[in-house]
Amino acid sequence: MTRPIVAIDWGTSSLRGARLDPQGAVLDERASLQGILNVPPGGFDAVFQAQFGDWAGADTLCLISGMAGSRQGWREAPYCQCPAGASDIAAALAWITPGRIAIVPGLSCERDGAPDVMRGEETQIFGALDMLGLTDALFVLPGTHSKWAHVQAGRVERFSTAMTGETYALLRHHSILARTLPSEDGPLHGAAFDAGVERALRSASLLQSAFTVRTLALFERSAPDELASYLSGLVIGEELRAQGALAGQRVHVIGNDALTQRYQRALARAGAEGVAVGAQATWRGLWNIARSLPE
Amino acid sequence: MTRPIVAIDWGTSSLRGARLDPQGAVLDERASLQGILNVPPGGFDAVFQAQFGDWAGADTLCLISGMAGSRQGWREAPYCQCPAGASDIAAALAWITPGRIAIVPGLSCERDGAPDVMRGEETQIFGALDMLGLTDALFVLPGTHSKWAHVQAGRVERFSTAMTGETYALLRHHSILARTLPSEDGPLHGAAFDAGVERALRSASLLQSAFTVRTLALFERSAPDELASYLSGLVIGEELRAQGALAGQRVHVIGNDALTQRYQRALARAGAEGVAVGAQATWRGLWNIARSLPE
Repeated sequence: MTRPIVAIDWGTSSLRGARLDPQGAVLDERASLQGILNVPPGGFDAVFQAQFGDWAGADTLCLISGMAGSRQGWREAPYCQCPAGASDIAAALAWITPGRIAIVPGLSCERDGAPDVMRGEETQIFGALDMLGLTDALFVLPGTHSKWAHVQAGRVERFSTAMTGETYALLRHHSILARTLPSEDGPLHGAAFDAGVERALRSASLLQSAFTVRTLALFERSAPDELASYLSGLVIGEELRAQGALAGQRVHVIGNDALTQRYQRALARAGAEGVAVGAQATWRGLWNIARSLPE
Repeated sequence: MTRPIVAIDWGTSSLRGARLDPQGAVLDERASLQGILNVPPGGFDAVFQAQFGDWAGADTLCLISGMAGSRQGWREAPYCQCPAGASDIAAALAWITPGRIAIVPGLSCERDGAPDVMRGEETQIFGALDMLGLTDALFVLPGTHSKWAHVQAGRVERFSTAMTGETYALLRHHSILARTLPSEDGPLHGAAFDAGVERALRSASLLQSAFTVRTLALFERSAPDELASYLSGLVIGEELRAQGALAGQRVHVIGNDALTQRYQRALARAGAEGVAVGAQATWRGLWNIARSLPE
């Protein structure tokens, strides 16, 4: 790659971009709240020009990952079927302006007779592989909908989604458990979080284990300010349990610092090692895809 | 028992009562929406008198089950520890007026270092045992918080709670899946419900399987009007999976007709037999507890 690159992560609720030199070094970054839900119909081109027009000169390649490629985004970029690597993604870009501006497709895979999908996480994974110098790895990208991805020979072989962050928020704020919990989460209570993770790893289902938030409070066996951490441990522990045997495995965690620390802590309870991946994975992933393009 | 009985089920959102003759036959029934959440502080006696004062003569025994015995109710009736039978419950009544008006305590049990609780369901179970002529049985009481109870020699040995109905409502109305689902549930789509149950029985966790509601819709592999039934099957199937091996077992289902039919259908997919218990279980249970009292 000999051209300058504008790397853009256009998600549901935010829009971030970075200007990269041909070697992938970050020269400048920008962010706004103009996620795809905040862009009026037909307004994507205008938002792009306003945010990044001064960066996007005639010799520049702009690559956009995330929900901008969904049906509700700028241009639908059909999912790439797994197994898929950075070069497969590069071959399936949805070009807005041929040779200059393109949207990165997400990935899909088939599991037990149903599809699974990701958009944006594939770019972070390809960036992390490059940063880590790995071709085989297990990744978790924690969040509203966590993704677990198995990579072999540089290609995502299969992955699965867990509705962990969303389920936590529903139980935390909208279920009967909300009556027991203080209105603010407060700082993480480590021992309570660990107790939640360990119970979840032993339990058959969160449907059952979640009710212990209520009963432990009812019998005054947990202090109110521990319960949000305990529930967080239950939900993250359930996600780990659903992955099957993790003991002895190395899991690469791509996410913000607070979530990454929780996942590292939970993985340790499951006998696994959680390795934090830095925050630059998206920019490196887009640069990696750009490198796969013919000059 | 030679006295007339007023049997009352005082729950969170409703108040129901029945006048029984000394042999347990139902003479009359009444219902109102004055559940405990709709009773002002200190107002329980007045509501009781207004609803049932004309039934509650000096020779009458009034027994009240349900949330009226909770901390937010008329009088807290401490939980009876399992194993417990009707006579244990009778010995632990919380008397409002000695010999005349009493509140039935709920049950608690200890599972894996955490307590579990029920209030009201124990009375339905003791009634069902009497109606069925059984002393050993497995029960499920489906609902917002489903209860599974193992009865041996007429005593509830152990039980567990699953937050099934509440989790369905959260996913159905408040999660990202709500965007995919039509606003009304419509009639049950049997094949879609069965597919949900079967997927849940094979899956590791609802955290994962629930996301298939979104992806099957995204790939147009399920029709929108099937998705609520499919999600219902996923959540009920998760509850069944968490019970462990059910194949070959007989499970007695105590609940309203619509829920009972769904559970019978789901139990059949798990290789179990769901036996419906009639709606009179509460009245029969309160009569059964009354019989256990010294005259």
